[in-house]
Amino acid sequence: VCSATDTHADLIERAVATGKHVFCEKPIDLSLPRVQEVVAKVKASNIISMLAFNRRFDPNFALLQQRIAAGEIGEVEMVSIISKDPAPPPVEYIKVSGGLFRDMTIHDFDMARFLLGEEIVEVCAQASCLVDAAIGEAGDVDTALVMLRTKSGKLAQISNSRRASFGYDQRLEVHGSLGMLTATNVNEHTLTSYTQAGVSHAKPLHFFLERYEQAYKSELAGFISVLNGADVALPSMDDGCQALLLAEAAILSVQQGRSVAVSEIG
Amino acid sequence: VCSATDTHADLIERAVATGKHVFCEKPIDLSLPRVQEVVAKVKASNIISMLAFNRRFDPNFALLQQRIAAGEIGEVEMVSIISKDPAPPPVEYIKVSGGLFRDMTIHDFDMARFLLGEEIVEVCAQASCLVDAAIGEAGDVDTALVMLRTKSGKLAQISNSRRASFGYDQRLEVHGSLGMLTATNVNEHTLTSYTQAGVSHAKPLHFFLERYEQAYKSELAGFISVLNGADVALPSMDDGCQALLLAEAAILSVQQGRSVAVSEIG
Amino acid sequence: VCSATDTHADLIERAVATGKHVFCEKPIDLSLPRVQEVVAKVKASNIISMLAFNRRFDPNFALLQQRIAAGEIGEVEMVSIISKDPAPPPVEYIKVSGGLFRDMTIHDFDMARFLLGEEIVEVCAQASCLVDAAIGEAGDVDTALVMLRTKSGKLAQISNSRRASFGYDQRLEVHGSLGMLTATNVNEHTLTSYTQAGVSHAKPLHFFLERYEQAYKSELAGFISVLNGADVALPSMDDGCQALLLAEAAILSVQQGRSVAVSEIG
Amino acid sequence: VCSATDTHADLIERAVATGKHVFCEKPIDLSLPRVQEVVAKVKASNIISMLAFNRRFDPNFALLQQRIAAGEIGEVEMVSIISKDPAPPPVEYIKVSGGLFRDMTIHDFDMARFLLGEEIVEVCAQASCLVDAAIGEAGDVDTALVMLRTKSGKLAQISNSRRASFGYDQRLEVHGSLGMLTATNVNEHTLTSYTQAGVSHAKPLHFFLERYEQAYKSELAGFISVLNGADVALPSMDDGCQALLLAEAAILSVQQGRSVAVSEIG
Repeated sequence: VCSATDTHADLIERAVATGKHVFCEKPIDLSLPRVQEVVAKVKASNIISMLAFNRRFDPNFALLQQRIAAGEIGEVEMVSIISKDPAPPPVEYIKVSGGLFRDMTIHDFDMARFLLGEEIVEVCAQASCLVDAAIGEAGDVDTALVMLRTKSGKLAQISNSRRASFGYDQRLEVHGSLGMLTATNVNEHTLTSYTQAGVSHAKPLHFFLERYEQAYKSELAGFISVLNGADVALPSMDDGCQALLLAEAAILSVQQGRSVAVSEIG
Repeated sequence: VCSATDTHADLIERAVATGKHVFCEKPIDLSLPRVQEVVAKVKASNIISMLAFNRRFDPNFALLQQRIAAGEIGEVEMVSIISKDPAPPPVEYIKVSGGLFRDMTIHDFDMARFLLGEEIVEVCAQASCLVDAAIGEAGDVDTALVMLRTKSGKLAQISNSRRASFGYDQRLEVHGSLGMLTATNVNEHTLTSYTQAGVSHAKPLHFFLERYEQAYKSELAGFISVLNGADVALPSMDDGCQALLLAEAAILSVQQGRSVAVSEIG
Repeated sequence: VCSATDTHADLIERAVATGKHVFCEKPIDLSLPRVQEVVAKVKASNIISMLAFNRRFDPNFALLQQRIAAGEIGEVEMVSIISKDPAPPPVEYIKVSGGLFRDMTIHDFDMARFLLGEEIVEVCAQASCLVDAAIGEAGDVDTALVMLRTKSGKLAQISNSRRASFGYDQRLEVHGSLGMLTATNVNEHTLTSYTQAGVSHAKPLHFFLERYEQAYKSELAGFISVLNGADVALPSMDDGCQALLLAEAAILSVQQGRSVAVSEIG
Repeated sequence: VCSATDTHADLIERAVATGKHVFCEKPIDLSLPRVQEVVAKVKASNIISMLAFNRRFDPNFALLQQRIAAGEIGEVEMVSIISKDPAPPPVEYIKVSGGLFRDMTIHDFDMARFLLGEEIVEVCAQASCLVDAAIGEAGDVDTALVMLRTKSGKLAQISNSRRASFGYDQRLEVHGSLGMLTATNVNEHTLTSYTQAGVSHAKPLHFFLERYEQAYKSELAGFISVLNGADVALPSMDDGCQALLLAEAAILSVQQGRSVAVSEIG
């Protein structure tokens, strides 16, 4: 299901009705009740389903998660997710996107859950419109910080901008009891130039099509493997629902200037 | 004034009374009213004074601030400050320290003000005791995230831990409308080792005495230059007061689970 | 032509005889007279031919050459080529390989020609057997340094080893009148681990199949493009001959302990 | 002894005559017989003497040598020394310098001996005048490559230029049976700038006064420690003589286009 967002929920329901396995692009829907309804139907069915949070399949991010899970840095204590787009989308897109938190940060909410290995109980966000005034006029923000907290006190922070002049900024940093693991940007090339003007390196790969090319291939391969009986962990429809819950909590946090318990939502 | 914290305020007052210029280690005092009282006296006097926020004098951090001020990355939009100690201090120290926000994060609050170039109006913090249960029993935290916001909507985030197993983690990252400037850790050496076991680099300089050796020299040199008539920008007693205000706001934010307006404090 | 080395020359001749375009793995042959004979026949024919010096198609190395050609570092003055295998091949392979200079360094001779942009007139080499005594017993060396010189005095150096315990070491460094351009190794991932034990990065991609995967795809795509009429610069059969000339000169240089003029060979 | 080069030998002899310990800047003299004469007198005396090869005291280079000596990369097999000045000295200096090999490469010859841990038996060099025609008119070269070989077959390569437009290029790379150790340049700062124009880092420290500031302090401290009875390994007058032997061999190698046995010299 790679069609327009407002068709996802219906198509998933039709997959359930006809017993077809379903691979669906995020988001399931922009309405939380509708998402919850669809997720319940999928759970009650026997179909294999996957919500395509592609970044879990990025080779570097996947390796980072595996190394954390293997105990390399002990207990996870703080996760930092940097996620910035090279340039904002057209305002027409912004208007139907559901807003920064449901459209863009949702990937980071999923990544935080993936890396923390524990459900998030509290969300606190601050957001501004600094990049493009038209985004603000459309009722959205383009720059945001989010703090997340799990029940045992693990923390995560997300920083988002709709515009990083140097390209797609996609980095992870996880601080644990025994050390830190980071994943830097993937760069366009390995060249360095040394001249009188200075020393210059490559920029990060420009945007998601370049940066996550392998991730897109791997997520589809993973889905197919599961259809063929393999035991691969796929992001579930419920993962999509949980990430949306965090987005709703972040929106409420910005509106009310307070930390929001995830249990308040939905 | 490099004596015990609880003697700073008295000694500054004696400097004012006797017309002596004063260089004082942070903090002025752990009590905000007492700090405000001392700052008022210093302001009303003719003495030259400096609160020793050493990190402003770190050559790399100072250069980063100068390049921001020179417009290299346009308008500052998001500041990220990573500040972690290699190991927690003894609990006896924790008990008289004023707590993580007044003792450790205070440097980062000052750095945020230094880099944002605009007063902070809102503070939101989350904190946990993950490193050492004895710190929690002493009523303090050892792991924290803070979000800050200026009137025009610029954002900053701080991440703190009392323990980074690999050493003193002191990094800055500033995202602006035209680009990003980062300052990495300063490492012990420039060697890299490539063996069958892997590729290994140097660790960061272990703690503040090594990392900020040059900063300590430069801040004192700066103070002396001002005494000799030079026009150097020194962190003022009021900068110390403003950083403490932010610490108080962060503490209140954690206690009440909400964003705190700086105007609520003091 | 990807068959065993001793069949290359015959197969190229049959391609010429039957008017088939030919893509051939290096080397054309281990005998210089035989190579010269084949190259002459190809030149006299109308077929499109390509000697598969894959490294010219490595995206990073190709970009480096383009940036040099575009004048970014002015006139090329010194080229450094580092080329080491992770582990030596079996001695059986060594025995039929033609020796280090004809088998391994030949890629570096071609790269030197590619980057210098000027024919090499003088070769000087030193070589040892340090990795595996069996290689020495087979009459070959496993560790070598080569210096090259063009007519106008541009210099190049090559360092080779049959064993780099950390993996395939493939780097370039070009020093010009206006600056330097380097291409580092391509690493297995972008993760860095910071623990009490130290800071560790990824190793280089292990060997040529991983490192030059894209180069192999690109060289074949380039050949097909030329067949389809595109104007792509392909390594020619004559490039293969020139690289072998340099290998012969290096062998003579080691034998006689002197610089060898390329004009002495062939 | 930090006076003009042509006074060094006399002053060392006066130190011997008067029983004074002597710290002398390189070179002892530009004439090999004169150097040998002085070294013999120093050896026959009881004075403590040191030839100031400052780079052995660079903290990074010293650490690299210690880690090699500790066996971290097994047996040393190939040493690469990159040494380029930011800009050529005035031709007046060139004329009295003794030429590139005696004046500039001599540091690298000493470093090669320091790292190889074995005497060098063979030298082969190639050199050009590419930077400044006036240097060539003065009978000197400004760009050079050297290969060195020890009795057991260990190899080393040196690359020199009188002009690196981006600053002082001082790097080491040592390949051993168990791995590789490198020491990169020391940079002006730790900042990185990411903009639409690209990603830029700091340049290396500009020239020897900045780059080897600590080395100069440490070598003097080392000399004083020895005077006070400590057991510190100092570069000896004989080390100065050995490095000059290698320079003479390199000059002969360029003149005659052949490898030169060190035993042929002096």
